[in-house]
Amino acid sequence: MELKTAIEQLRAAEAKSAALGHAMGIIYFDAVTTAPKGTDEGRGRTLAMLSEESYKLTSGEEMGALLAFLEEHRAELDAQTAREVELLKRSYDQLRRIPMDEYVEYTVLLNTAETVWENAKKNNDFASFAPYLEKIVETNRRFAGYYDPNKKPYDALLNEYERGVDTEMLDAFFSQLRETIVPLVKRVSEKPRPDDSFMHRAYPAAEQKKLAEKLMQVMGIDRSHCGLAESEHPFTTNFNNRDVRITTHYYENDLASSMYSVIHEGGHALYELGVADELQYTAASGGASMGVHESQSRFYENIVGRSKEFISAVFPMIKEIFPRQLEDVSENEFYRAVNIGEPSLIRTESDELTYCLHIYVRYELEKKLISGELAVADLPAEWDRMYKEVLGVDVPDDTHGVLQDSHWAGGSIGYFPSYALGNAYGAQLLSVMEKDVDVRAAMRSGDLSPITEWLHEHIHIFGSLYDPRELFERVCGKFDAGYYTDYLTEKFTELYGL
Amino acid sequence: MELKTAIEQLRAAEAKSAALGHAMGIIYFDAVTTAPKGTDEGRGRTLAMLSEESYKLTSGEEMGALLAFLEEHRAELDAQTAREVELLKRSYDQLRRIPMDEYVEYTVLLNTAETVWENAKKNNDFASFAPYLEKIVETNRRFAGYYDPNKKPYDALLNEYERGVDTEMLDAFFSQLRETIVPLVKRVSEKPRPDDSFMHRAYPAAEQKKLAEKLMQVMGIDRSHCGLAESEHPFTTNFNNRDVRITTHYYENDLASSMYSVIHEGGHALYELGVADELQYTAASGGASMGVHESQSRFYENIVGRSKEFISAVFPMIKEIFPRQLEDVSENEFYRAVNIGEPSLIRTESDELTYCLHIYVRYELEKKLISGELAVADLPAEWDRMYKEVLGVDVPDDTHGVLQDSHWAGGSIGYFPSYALGNAYGAQLLSVMEKDVDVRAAMRSGDLSPITEWLHEHIHIFGSLYDPRELFERVCGKFDAGYYTDYLTEKFTELYGL
Repeated sequence: MELKTAIEQLRAAEAKSAALGHAMGIIYFDAVTTAPKGTDEGRGRTLAMLSEESYKLTSGEEMGALLAFLEEHRAELDAQTAREVELLKRSYDQLRRIPMDEYVEYTVLLNTAETVWENAKKNNDFASFAPYLEKIVETNRRFAGYYDPNKKPYDALLNEYERGVDTEMLDAFFSQLRETIVPLVKRVSEKPRPDDSFMHRAYPAAEQKKLAEKLMQVMGIDRSHCGLAESEHPFTTNFNNRDVRITTHYYENDLASSMYSVIHEGGHALYELGVADELQYTAASGGASMGVHESQSRFYENIVGRSKEFISAVFPMIKEIFPRQLEDVSENEFYRAVNIGEPSLIRTESDELTYCLHIYVRYELEKKLISGELAVADLPAEWDRMYKEVLGVDVPDDTHGVLQDSHWAGGSIGYFPSYALGNAYGAQLLSVMEKDVDVRAAMRSGDLSPITEWLHEHIHIFGSLYDPRELFERVCGKFDAGYYTDYLTEKFTELYGL
Repeated sequence: MELKTAIEQLRAAEAKSAALGHAMGIIYFDAVTTAPKGTDEGRGRTLAMLSEESYKLTSGEEMGALLAFLEEHRAELDAQTAREVELLKRSYDQLRRIPMDEYVEYTVLLNTAETVWENAKKNNDFASFAPYLEKIVETNRRFAGYYDPNKKPYDALLNEYERGVDTEMLDAFFSQLRETIVPLVKRVSEKPRPDDSFMHRAYPAAEQKKLAEKLMQVMGIDRSHCGLAESEHPFTTNFNNRDVRITTHYYENDLASSMYSVIHEGGHALYELGVADELQYTAASGGASMGVHESQSRFYENIVGRSKEFISAVFPMIKEIFPRQLEDVSENEFYRAVNIGEPSLIRTESDELTYCLHIYVRYELEKKLISGELAVADLPAEWDRMYKEVLGVDVPDDTHGVLQDSHWAGGSIGYFPSYALGNAYGAQLLSVMEKDVDVRAAMRSGDLSPITEWLHEHIHIFGSLYDPRELFERVCGKFDAGYYTDYLTEKFTELYGL
């Protein structure tokens, strides 16, 4: 085979893979934003068919031979093509390492487990979910051996979600977070709680939608390439760098919820909109990792969105949309209301200060589940014990405890830590960005373009050209969680006058 | 090969084809209801990829061999499987008959032609579109020879859209329509025009949406299997009999537009929702033809939706939603306002009485274009002349004349007559239905279920098991346009007191 032909075949396979991904993505997007509720069956069939096609394409003999040939000629490939081959080989190996029957069995297991989990959560019935979780843990432990038999199983799983991360690194990271945040939370809790009752007045969805549009405008998101829809849980999906969709959920008695989900998802969207054109429809399109993605979304949500400067820029606009509801509220009161730091039960509703403690608990539990140190049967009690120890809250039931997140039911073990890493990446990015950009001034002016341009140039444009750690270190040097703990300490010390 | 294996392969290919159709359908649906405007490129790539897959699947060597084998064993197949093989063979032959290079060239031509037509319509510039239309006419003439070299070219095209229909039949049909409708329109025009100014008061979209929901409920459309969305032009799409979507467009100064588009599309939806489960994901799923589909949608829109009885059932509900706007309007005034019969310029806005005259003009023009009797350059003048002769209206410009419809730009020549046939099928269906069902009483009660159940049992459930003519004749016997002309004569004589 000629090299030129092989590269053409590679691009054709990538384009087909992108098309299948697009089709599956839009079917999912439709399912959670638009589809009538009784339409699961046909969708399930179509998704099964498309994912089988995708599986065959990325893990078939043909792809194997093509990648082997291209690897032999690695020296002759340009950097981007070499990277595409590397990424495709990685997913080829991973898919091939799991025996087909085990893969299918696991898919079926997860399909049932998610429904069982939903009901278990609704009925506060952990016992019904436990046998499924046991199988999921056991399968993940086994798959970890396929992923990398030389690593400890949990390390192998972590590596799937955030390449280059392991328990050694995370143990140090979380211990540093815990040492800073737990005492900080304690000091904050001794201060009077700012009033945020006005955030729960009547905010009609139609007006919140206007605010969402305005916020996307302020963020410089090109609406001709980024949609805004509604779904139960906010998320971002992208089909290419010219077609990104974010969703939000409007709660009529909660202004902050949709406001900050739009800013958060907007951060994800800017990342995907900013990936280079040359990478589109190849294996190197899309963000570098979940952790890097969260570094962008949390950057906009918290570092920008909850800053004094940004609030000062957007508060007049918010007040214009909700003149009655915010009649008696000052800019500073608004700023303090969106920055209350206090221990709570639910991760997704937790604040900037305590968020990573929720992740820390999950990290410790996952580590022990996979090592076998903790049995699934003992998980709820251990969850409750750790929430009391770390966050100081009493978990009233499993619905508001161990059953709250869908991740484990969906088979994602080792995924949670990326959320915490994303937060910490963001703070370190800020410190580097500040050398080039007057970040505070940009936020105060309400024109975020200098910030977005910097992130575009340093992060977005590279897509998946680099592994996440490499990308991060090219921009920031060695990872240091101190930037993040300093950021939190400084912010909450000032906020609460500690 | 064993027969059992061959049937399994057939079902697998049909399931894959259904999945690809589902994916393409939802991408299209998203494009016209939801997608941001700058997202064409990626969508175009994905649709090209999926349709190529679909093309390969339905016209590839593998399918050819499989169908040949199954045809040899036709005697051993059950009726449904035999029908699936027949339908698949038909589309296989059709696709194979067109040389690949001509097919691709035509696809590219249409892609450009649609954009050119859009601009031509906007700028009243027929000359810019003419060269494209010439190529489209010429290609259709050539393809007609591939479809069926034994038929006159236009007959071969007609047969593609409504199997079993030809110019001999349509000449008689349209001449009967013309002879009845033209004098009827004349007599109606001599009577005072009913007032419909109140239909153009301010009707907010949000309230119109409530009415749409109510109408779907009255029609017995199961909302858990049928979505309602908004698009520029109303349409219906279905992925299977548990997932159908209709769209409408709300004009804030026109109540009838979305009201009747919802009832029309609702008729299409009931058809697809009613196709038998056994036919799903096979080649025999979906409605029998475009003409039969229109017979359902126009039945609900006109025969039911514009009847005195139905208006009497729903007018109180409409008035409840729009109390101010309809304060001074009586049920009878509303009934007369939605039944104004008068010549007009635009087919899609025309009324029940004159609609088929618009189709008749197009039919005559298409016939002459394909036979070569009429040159594309002479088309606008001939269009205007016929509109004057048949409808008595002066066409002010090509935008409101020959450029108004997208069909020809989209390559559909021979499609229009199905609209007229659908209307006539509906009237004949009514007369047969009335032997079993008290149709007037059902409409008056606002409970349409006896009507829908009858259509379900006699039409919907069969999907594409029969060719349209066969299906129709099983239910109604020989087609007779007299039912339709009688229906119109009776209705408009009573309405206008002729």
